[in-house]
Amino acid sequence: MINEKIITQAIIESYTNKLLSSLELDVAVCGAGPSGLVAAYYLAKKGCKVAVFERKLSIGGGMWGGGMMFNEIVVQEEGKGILDEFGITAKPYSEGYYVADAIESVSGLCYNAVKAGAKIFNLISVEDLVVGEDKVAGIVINWTAVEMAGLHVDPLTIFTKAVVDSTGHPVEVVKVLEMKSGIRLRTKTGRMLGEGSMWAQKGEETIVAHSKEICPGLYACGMCANAVFGGPRMGPIFGGMLLAGKKVAADMLKRL
Amino acid sequence: MINEKIITQAIIESYTNKLLSSLELDVAVCGAGPSGLVAAYYLAKKGCKVAVFERKLSIGGGMWGGGMMFNEIVVQEEGKGILDEFGITAKPYSEGYYVADAIESVSGLCYNAVKAGAKIFNLISVEDLVVGEDKVAGIVINWTAVEMAGLHVDPLTIFTKAVVDSTGHPVEVVKVLEMKSGIRLRTKTGRMLGEGSMWAQKGEETIVAHSKEICPGLYACGMCANAVFGGPRMGPIFGGMLLAGKKVAADMLKRL
Amino acid sequence: MINEKIITQAIIESYTNKLLSSLELDVAVCGAGPSGLVAAYYLAKKGCKVAVFERKLSIGGGMWGGGMMFNEIVVQEEGKGILDEFGITAKPYSEGYYVADAIESVSGLCYNAVKAGAKIFNLISVEDLVVGEDKVAGIVINWTAVEMAGLHVDPLTIFTKAVVDSTGHPVEVVKVLEMKSGIRLRTKTGRMLGEGSMWAQKGEETIVAHSKEICPGLYACGMCANAVFGGPRMGPIFGGMLLAGKKVAADMLKRL
Amino acid sequence: MINEKIITQAIIESYTNKLLSSLELDVAVCGAGPSGLVAAYYLAKKGCKVAVFERKLSIGGGMWGGGMMFNEIVVQEEGKGILDEFGITAKPYSEGYYVADAIESVSGLCYNAVKAGAKIFNLISVEDLVVGEDKVAGIVINWTAVEMAGLHVDPLTIFTKAVVDSTGHPVEVVKVLEMKSGIRLRTKTGRMLGEGSMWAQKGEETIVAHSKEICPGLYACGMCANAVFGGPRMGPIFGGMLLAGKKVAADMLKRL
Amino acid sequence: MINEKIITQAIIESYTNKLLSSLELDVAVCGAGPSGLVAAYYLAKKGCKVAVFERKLSIGGGMWGGGMMFNEIVVQEEGKGILDEFGITAKPYSEGYYVADAIESVSGLCYNAVKAGAKIFNLISVEDLVVGEDKVAGIVINWTAVEMAGLHVDPLTIFTKAVVDSTGHPVEVVKVLEMKSGIRLRTKTGRMLGEGSMWAQKGEETIVAHSKEICPGLYACGMCANAVFGGPRMGPIFGGMLLAGKKVAADMLKRL
Amino acid sequence: MINEKIITQAIIESYTNKLLSSLELDVAVCGAGPSGLVAAYYLAKKGCKVAVFERKLSIGGGMWGGGMMFNEIVVQEEGKGILDEFGITAKPYSEGYYVADAIESVSGLCYNAVKAGAKIFNLISVEDLVVGEDKVAGIVINWTAVEMAGLHVDPLTIFTKAVVDSTGHPVEVVKVLEMKSGIRLRTKTGRMLGEGSMWAQKGEETIVAHSKEICPGLYACGMCANAVFGGPRMGPIFGGMLLAGKKVAADMLKRL
Amino acid sequence: MINEKIITQAIIESYTNKLLSSLELDVAVCGAGPSGLVAAYYLAKKGCKVAVFERKLSIGGGMWGGGMMFNEIVVQEEGKGILDEFGITAKPYSEGYYVADAIESVSGLCYNAVKAGAKIFNLISVEDLVVGEDKVAGIVINWTAVEMAGLHVDPLTIFTKAVVDSTGHPVEVVKVLEMKSGIRLRTKTGRMLGEGSMWAQKGEETIVAHSKEICPGLYACGMCANAVFGGPRMGPIFGGMLLAGKKVAADMLKRL
Amino acid sequence: MINEKIITQAIIESYTNKLLSSLELDVAVCGAGPSGLVAAYYLAKKGCKVAVFERKLSIGGGMWGGGMMFNEIVVQEEGKGILDEFGITAKPYSEGYYVADAIESVSGLCYNAVKAGAKIFNLISVEDLVVGEDKVAGIVINWTAVEMAGLHVDPLTIFTKAVVDSTGHPVEVVKVLEMKSGIRLRTKTGRMLGEGSMWAQKGEETIVAHSKEICPGLYACGMCANAVFGGPRMGPIFGGMLLAGKKVAADMLKRL
Repeated sequence: MINEKIITQAIIESYTNKLLSSLELDVAVCGAGPSGLVAAYYLAKKGCKVAVFERKLSIGGGMWGGGMMFNEIVVQEEGKGILDEFGITAKPYSEGYYVADAIESVSGLCYNAVKAGAKIFNLISVEDLVVGEDKVAGIVINWTAVEMAGLHVDPLTIFTKAVVDSTGHPVEVVKVLEMKSGIRLRTKTGRMLGEGSMWAQKGEETIVAHSKEICPGLYACGMCANAVFGGPRMGPIFGGMLLAGKKVAADMLKRL
Repeated sequence: MINEKIITQAIIESYTNKLLSSLELDVAVCGAGPSGLVAAYYLAKKGCKVAVFERKLSIGGGMWGGGMMFNEIVVQEEGKGILDEFGITAKPYSEGYYVADAIESVSGLCYNAVKAGAKIFNLISVEDLVVGEDKVAGIVINWTAVEMAGLHVDPLTIFTKAVVDSTGHPVEVVKVLEMKSGIRLRTKTGRMLGEGSMWAQKGEETIVAHSKEICPGLYACGMCANAVFGGPRMGPIFGGMLLAGKKVAADMLKRL
Repeated sequence: MINEKIITQAIIESYTNKLLSSLELDVAVCGAGPSGLVAAYYLAKKGCKVAVFERKLSIGGGMWGGGMMFNEIVVQEEGKGILDEFGITAKPYSEGYYVADAIESVSGLCYNAVKAGAKIFNLISVEDLVVGEDKVAGIVINWTAVEMAGLHVDPLTIFTKAVVDSTGHPVEVVKVLEMKSGIRLRTKTGRMLGEGSMWAQKGEETIVAHSKEICPGLYACGMCANAVFGGPRMGPIFGGMLLAGKKVAADMLKRL
Repeated sequence: MINEKIITQAIIESYTNKLLSSLELDVAVCGAGPSGLVAAYYLAKKGCKVAVFERKLSIGGGMWGGGMMFNEIVVQEEGKGILDEFGITAKPYSEGYYVADAIESVSGLCYNAVKAGAKIFNLISVEDLVVGEDKVAGIVINWTAVEMAGLHVDPLTIFTKAVVDSTGHPVEVVKVLEMKSGIRLRTKTGRMLGEGSMWAQKGEETIVAHSKEICPGLYACGMCANAVFGGPRMGPIFGGMLLAGKKVAADMLKRL
Repeated sequence: MINEKIITQAIIESYTNKLLSSLELDVAVCGAGPSGLVAAYYLAKKGCKVAVFERKLSIGGGMWGGGMMFNEIVVQEEGKGILDEFGITAKPYSEGYYVADAIESVSGLCYNAVKAGAKIFNLISVEDLVVGEDKVAGIVINWTAVEMAGLHVDPLTIFTKAVVDSTGHPVEVVKVLEMKSGIRLRTKTGRMLGEGSMWAQKGEETIVAHSKEICPGLYACGMCANAVFGGPRMGPIFGGMLLAGKKVAADMLKRL
Repeated sequence: MINEKIITQAIIESYTNKLLSSLELDVAVCGAGPSGLVAAYYLAKKGCKVAVFERKLSIGGGMWGGGMMFNEIVVQEEGKGILDEFGITAKPYSEGYYVADAIESVSGLCYNAVKAGAKIFNLISVEDLVVGEDKVAGIVINWTAVEMAGLHVDPLTIFTKAVVDSTGHPVEVVKVLEMKSGIRLRTKTGRMLGEGSMWAQKGEETIVAHSKEICPGLYACGMCANAVFGGPRMGPIFGGMLLAGKKVAADMLKRL
Repeated sequence: MINEKIITQAIIESYTNKLLSSLELDVAVCGAGPSGLVAAYYLAKKGCKVAVFERKLSIGGGMWGGGMMFNEIVVQEEGKGILDEFGITAKPYSEGYYVADAIESVSGLCYNAVKAGAKIFNLISVEDLVVGEDKVAGIVINWTAVEMAGLHVDPLTIFTKAVVDSTGHPVEVVKVLEMKSGIRLRTKTGRMLGEGSMWAQKGEETIVAHSKEICPGLYACGMCANAVFGGPRMGPIFGGMLLAGKKVAADMLKRL
Repeated sequence: MINEKIITQAIIESYTNKLLSSLELDVAVCGAGPSGLVAAYYLAKKGCKVAVFERKLSIGGGMWGGGMMFNEIVVQEEGKGILDEFGITAKPYSEGYYVADAIESVSGLCYNAVKAGAKIFNLISVEDLVVGEDKVAGIVINWTAVEMAGLHVDPLTIFTKAVVDSTGHPVEVVKVLEMKSGIRLRTKTGRMLGEGSMWAQKGEETIVAHSKEICPGLYACGMCANAVFGGPRMGPIFGGMLLAGKKVAADMLKRL
C-alpha cells in the first residue's frame, strides 16, 4: 500500500530543508549555463557551500541547442580536459578540435555538479542584490513563475560571501547592480562595456581573463564576463566557457 | 589560432551524419521524459538503434520541477534499483520511500541514456505518423520552432520498426493516430480511454502493466499508458514511471 | 539592528508548518468567494480543521466589484443576520433591502474567517481531485503561477474528509470530476445541469437548497450549487450566497 | 417576492452618492497597499474626508503573497502596535520579530480602514494630476478597465487639499508629475532618485522619515517614499511600511 | 473662470439619471447596427421608451467600412425611402440601385435615432437575459471593458416588455438564450438554424419577413433574423436591413 | 431580381472615384475627432477641397465615451453656438454650462461635416509626410489594417496645400515630422513641448490660440495644439475643442 | 522630374481595372500553392479568364520551406515534365528522383502562371461562397488584413463558372461550404472525410484522381483533394501536387 | 513504388551540401528584397560565389503588396531596362512611367537570380556580424524560427569577402554593427543618419549614389542606403531600387 500523504510530506520537507540550509552561502551562482555549472562543481568539490539559481525550469542554458538547433558542440584542445573530467565523450574532428553531443554535454555537466555537492534551485529568478555599504552581500530571489504570471508578490533574500553572475548574454545580475547602485565596476569606465560582435579567436582568449571579481563580492563568469569588459562573443565553441568557470572558482577559493 | 570555419563545419557535418544515420531506426521514442529515457537506455544497451525525439529545447519533461516547484522526487522500494543503476542518489525518507534531488535525477537519466548509445534529437516535434496497411511504420517530424512560429513548412519522415509514445499527459502520438486513422487500439473500446483523477496507489500498480504495444508498431509508455487505458494519474512519485520504461523496452526487445 | 536572515527564515518556516499541518484536513474549501468564506468560518468556529484554497492572489472573488464596478452590494432581510455576525455595516435602502459597501463586506468576511481559525492558501489552483473507490478523498493542488506561466510541473495532494466546490460560475472542481471519473452526481441526470439565465427571485430560493453534498465526499456551495442543479443566476444580491455557506457548513458538521 | 429592479437601483444610487460626495476631498490616497490603508485609517479617524483610489479589483497590493507566495509576513517590535490596533494576530518568532498571516493582515487593514470612515474606490486608475499654479490640486481618474481594454475614453477629476502617492514600487503618481510638470520635488536633485537595491536595515530606518510632503499638495508614503528619495527596498518586513502610513497621516493632519 | 468640479458633476448626474430612468423600458434594442438604429428610431417616434445597448465604443456596427474597406454602400429602390427620411444622400448608380457614403449613412442613422428620443448606451455588453416563467423579461448588462479586461465583476439588470436582438452575424442574445434556457424558438426545429452562404437576392427577400418575434418577449432583427431562420447573408447592400428595422418596430408597436 | 455584380461594382467604382479625386487636396485633416470634424465642416462650407483621414473604423475619436464611459459631455457658453449650428441638443446644467448626449454630439458633427462636402476616409493611417524643400507638401497613407496586421506593404501619397494634425493626445503627424525632418516648429524651442497635467481653466483658454500653423504647410488643431505648445489637458469639456476647429479653419481660409 | 501624383494614380487605376475586370470569371482558384498555380497556368494558357486568390502577402504556400526548412524539394519521374515546362532545374538524385531548389521552384511556378495570363490577387481571403439553388456560383472575398486586424467590415463578391479549392491542408473553402450549406459532396458520406496520416506512396497515387469536381461548381485540387476524400498526406514530394493541378485544369476545360 | 526514405535523404543531403559549400562566400547579401535580388543576380552572372539570406519564409520583401495592397508597381524609364532583362512585362502608363504586376515582378526577380547562380537561404536571420580588426569578415546566422519562438540557441557563422545590407527600412545589419562595434561609417557623422520623410524625386536621385561600401567589407544597397545617408523614402516606385542593386554589384565586382 502506498501512503500517499508521505509523498507530499517528503517533498515539502526535503525541499524546505535544502532551502533553509542555503539561506547563508559561501557562493551563490546565478545562471546554470555551462560556465556556472563548472564553477559550482569546482567550488563544491573544495567543500564550499555553493548553490546555483536558475530562472528556467531546466538546467543548461543555451548549450542544449548546439549551433542553429544542430545539437553538437565544439571544444578546442585546451577545454577537452574538463570534458574528460566530467566523463563527456569528445570525438576528434580535425587537429585540435573535438565535437561533443550537446545533450550529453549539458546533462553531464549538470549531473556532476550536483554529485559534487552543489545545490541547484531551478525556477528561481534573481531579481535584485542585497547591497550594504558598497559590498554585494546577497541575492534577492523570487519564483520565476511569479514574474511570468505578472503577479505582485514580494521576494526573499539569501546571504552570501560571493555572488557569481553567469547569466550569459543578458548579464542579468550586473545590470541590476548598475541600475540600482552607485558601485563602480573594475572596467575602464567603471560601467559595463557591452558585448562585441562575433570574433571567436579573440573571444576565447579574453573570456578566461575577464572571468573574475568585478566589484566587492560580485564575480562575472563566462559570456557575462566578456559582456562586462567589452569582449567579443564566440558562438558554439565551448572551451573558453568551461575554462572560465574553472578559473572563477579558483579565484574565489583564494578568498573564501 | 582558431579556425572559425571549422566550428560551423564540424557542427553541421556531425549533426547531419547523426540525422542521416537515424532515418531508419529500430525504435523511435517520442518524448524524453523519465520513462522514455529509461526505455531508450535499456534498448540502446542491448544494441538497438534507438533515437529519442523531444519537442522542447531541454530534456526531462516534468521531472525538473519535482512537486509544486519543490525540486525533489519520491521513489518507492521497487523503483530504487533503477536509480541505483543510473548512479542517482536516493536518500531514505521513511520505510520504503526514498527522496532524490529532481535535478540530479533528470540529468542522470539523460546522461546515461546518451552514454548507452541512444541518440537524442531535441527541438523536434512528432506531428504525425507514417501509417501503411494498418501498421505504424514511422514518424513524421518537424522543428518545434516551425510550429511555435506558426510557419507553413513541410515535415520529413523517419522509418522505424517500433514507435513509443512517452509524451506523458498529452499523449500526443496516440491522439494523432486516433484522429487520422481507423486503427483500433487494444483497449476495451478500441479508443483511448483517458486519464483518471489522482490515485497514486492504483496508478503505480497499473502503469507498468499498461506500458505495452497498443496497436501494430506503436507502444505506450509511462503516464501515456495510463491515459490510453483509463488508469489514474500519480503525481511526483516516480517508481512506476521508471519501471514502465524498463518494461516497455523488454517487450520490444522480444519482438525486434 | 535588523537580522535580515530571520525575515526569510520566519516566513518559510511559518508557511511550511501551516502547509504541512494541512496535509490532512476535515474540509477543503475550493474558492474563497463569499459563500466559501462563510462556510469556512462556521466550520472553523465549531473546531473543524478547515482550509480554503484560492486560485487568485487576493481573496473575495466577484464581490469586490459590486455590480458593474459600482462597489456596493445588496442583501435582503434574511441574509442581514450574517452581515451582523461578521460586523459588516448594512444600511437599509427600502423595506427588506440593505446596501453594504463591497470592500467592507469582502474584507470583513475574509478577516473573520481567518480569525475563526480557517487557514487560507491563496495562489493555489485545485487542478484535480483524489478519487478512490467512488469517493472523493482529497484535492490535487498546484501553484496558480505554474499554470499561468505554462510550466510543466507536477502537483501535490491534500487528503480530506470533505471537499466543498465554491468556485462560483466556473464550477471548477465539479467539472474536473465529471471529465475524469464515472461518479454520478445527485442531480436528475447524474450530470451537472448548468446555470440558467438570470432570475433573482428563484435563484435566491434555490441556492440554499442546492448547497449540499452532491456525491460522496463532495459538496457544492453558492452559485456553484445552482449551476450543478440547473438553477438560475442572481446578480449582486448576496443574501442567498451567505446563507448557502452557512447551510453547507451545517450539513457537513452533521457528518464529520 | 424579490423586487429585482430595486437591486440595480440601490447599487447605482448608493455608488453615485458615494462618488458625488467625494468630488471634493481633504485627502486622496492613491494606492490601497498597507501604508495607504493605514494612512487612510488614521486620517478618517480624525474626521478627515478621505478616499482611497486603487487600480486593481482587490485591495491590499503586494501584501497578499507574503514572501515568494509563502503567505506570511514579518513585523518588528516597533510595528507590532499598529497590528494590535487593527486587531491582527502577531505571533512572536524570535526576539523582536513577529509573524502574521498575510491574509488576515491585509483584510484586517482594509476592513478597519473602511470602518473608520475612509471611502475606497477600487478599479480606478489615477492617470494624471490636476496641477494649477505650481500646486497639486486634485487627481484625474478613469476606470482601470478602460486602460486595460485600450479604449479611448476621457477621464474625470477629483479635487483635493492633499494627494498621497502610496502606489509602491511603480511610484505612479510622482512619475506622472515629473513627466508632465516642471514642479521641483524636495529631494537633492529636485527629481525622483529611484529605489536602491535591497537593504532591509537601512530601508526600515529611512521609510518613515521619507514619508512626507514632497511638493506642495503631494505626499509620498511607504515604498514610494524610499523610491523618491533613493532609499533601499526592504522585502516582506512590514513594520516600517505601517509606521510610514501613520506618520504621513500625522503630517497631513497638522496642515489640514 | 471654469468651475472644474461642475464638469465632473454634470456628467455623472446626467448619465446616472439617464440610466436610472432606463431601468424599466418598453424595448431594449441589443446592438446599434443599421437595423437596430432604424428600429429604435421608429419606436421612439411613436413614444415608446426605448434604449439601445451597444458593446463597442462607437455606434454603427459593420456599416462604417462599406465593402472591403471601400466606404460606400448600396441600397435598392425599396430601401431608398428610409435613407430619404433620415436625410442621407443616395446617388443613383444604375437603374434601381443607389450608392451612399458609408460615413454619412451611419452617422445619419445614429444622429436621427437619438433626436427621435432613443437613449443609446455604448460600451455595454448584454451578457445574459432575465427569463422568468418562459418569457424574456429583461437583459443583464455589464461594461464591455470589464469583459475585455477579463475582470470578475457582477452585472446589473434592465427590465423590459420586449428585447430586440440586432447584434448581426454573432446573434449574441439568441445564442445566450439557447445555451441557458429551454425556451423553443419559432423556427422549424425550435432552435437557431444558422446563417447560410451569400445569396443577396434571396437574403434581401427573407430578411424582412424573418425580422419578428421569435419567442415570448424576444425579437430578431436584420442579419440576426436571417441567422435565426437559416436565411443567406447579403453583403454590403442595405435596403433589406433598413426595412427590417422598420418592420420589427411595427410588429412591436402592435403589442405594446 | 437583384443584380449582385452591380453591388460590388458600384462600391469599388464609387470609392475609387472618391479616392482618385482626392489625390490633390486643398486640406488634408488627419484625425476625425471633434476639432478635426469642425475644421473640415467650415472648410468644406467655404468650398475648399478637404478630406479627413481617420485611423479607426469609426469616426469621432474620444468623444463617444463622455467622461469615464458616462456618455455625456459638457460645453460652456462660448462653445454652445457651434452645437446649435450642427443641430445638437445642449441642455442647460448650471449657469454657463450645458450638457449634451455624447452619441448625438459625435454623430451630429460627423453627419454635418459630410453633408457640408468633406470627404472622410476611415481605416487609413497617416504614416509619414511628403516634405520637400522645408515645406509639408502632402501625406503618406496606408490602410490601418496593414499596420495592425504587421504586414510589409508600401504606402501611397496624397498632395495638399495644407495638412492639419488633429490626432489629439498622440500628436501623430507632428511626431513623425520631428523624428524624420529638421524642420523647426514655431514653439519656444523649435520642438514639440508636450502636454501638461490637467487644468481645464487654462487649457480652454490656450487651445484656441494654439490651434494655428506650426510650420510651413502644417497646422495643429485641438488637443494636439496644446500638446505642441505645452498647454494643459482639459478632460470632457468640449467648448474649446470645437472653437479650435473653427479657428484653424479660419486661419487656413485666409491663405488658401 | 518625377511627377509623384502619377505613381499613386497609376497604381490605383491599374489595380482597380484588374479587379473590376475580374468580377465575373471563368474560374476562381482559391489558394496560390503549387497545385493552384499549375491549374491557373494551364487554364490561362487555354484562354480561360482565371484569377487566383491568396490569403498571404506572398505566393507559393508551403513550398518555400522545402522539408523542415531545408529548402529543397523532390519530384519523381512523372512530375518532372511539368518542372521542365516551367523552366525549373531538376537535378537527378537517384533513379526516378529529382531534387529542385525550393525557391527556384516556387518563383518559377508563380512567374509562369502570371506570364500565361492568370491574374493573382494576394492579401485576399475567401471567407464564404456565393451559393444559389444548390450550385456554387461565386466567392465572397475580403482583405486578409481586415480579418487579421479583427475589424468588422463587410466583404464583396466575385461571380464564377467554377471555383477551385487549392488551399491545401486547411481545406478552407470546402469547410465553409459544409458548415453553411446542405450541399452533398461526391464522397462516400457526402461529407469531407479528412486527411489521413502520411503514406507518400498511396498519397501520390490518389491525389491526382481525387482532384476533380466535388459538387456543382466546386473543384478540389492538390492536398485539399486528398483531405476531401480521406487520402493520406505526402510530405515534400511534389510530383502528384503538380500533376493534380494539371488534371483539374483539364477537367474544367472540358466543361467551360 | 516510392522509396520514401529517399525523399528525406535527398532533401537533407542537398541542403547540407548547399550550406556547407556556402560557408565561405565572395558576397553575402542580407535581405531578399528587389535591390538585394538584383545585386545577387549581377554578381552571380559574373561568377561570384554569392548567397542571399532572408529572414522570412518567402522571398521578395515589400514588393508583393504594391502600394496599399493594390498589387501593382511603377517604374520610370531609367529602370525599365532591368525589368526587360528579367523578362518582366512593363506596361506604359504615361510618358516615362510604366506599370508592372507586383506578383510577376517579384517572382521574376527571384526566379532569375537563382537561375543566374545565386543561392538563396530563406528562414535565416542575420543576427550579428563577424568583425575582426576593424573589418567586416562574415555574418552570424540563425534560424528565424528560433528567434520567433524565443528559444535560446546559439548561431553559426559564414565568412565572406563582402557583406551587403539590403534589409530595407529596418537596416538590420548596419544597426547591429553600430550597436556592437566602434567602426566609423562613411557618412558625415560616422554614424547612420536615418531615413527622411517621403520625397520620391530626391529619393530616386540619391538611392543609387548611396548604394556603396560604407565601411571596410560592408555595403548598403537600396532603401537601406538612403537610411544610412539620411536620404528620403520613395514609396512604390522601383526604378531606383533596381538600379541601386545593379550599381552596388558593379562596385563590388571592381574589388573582388
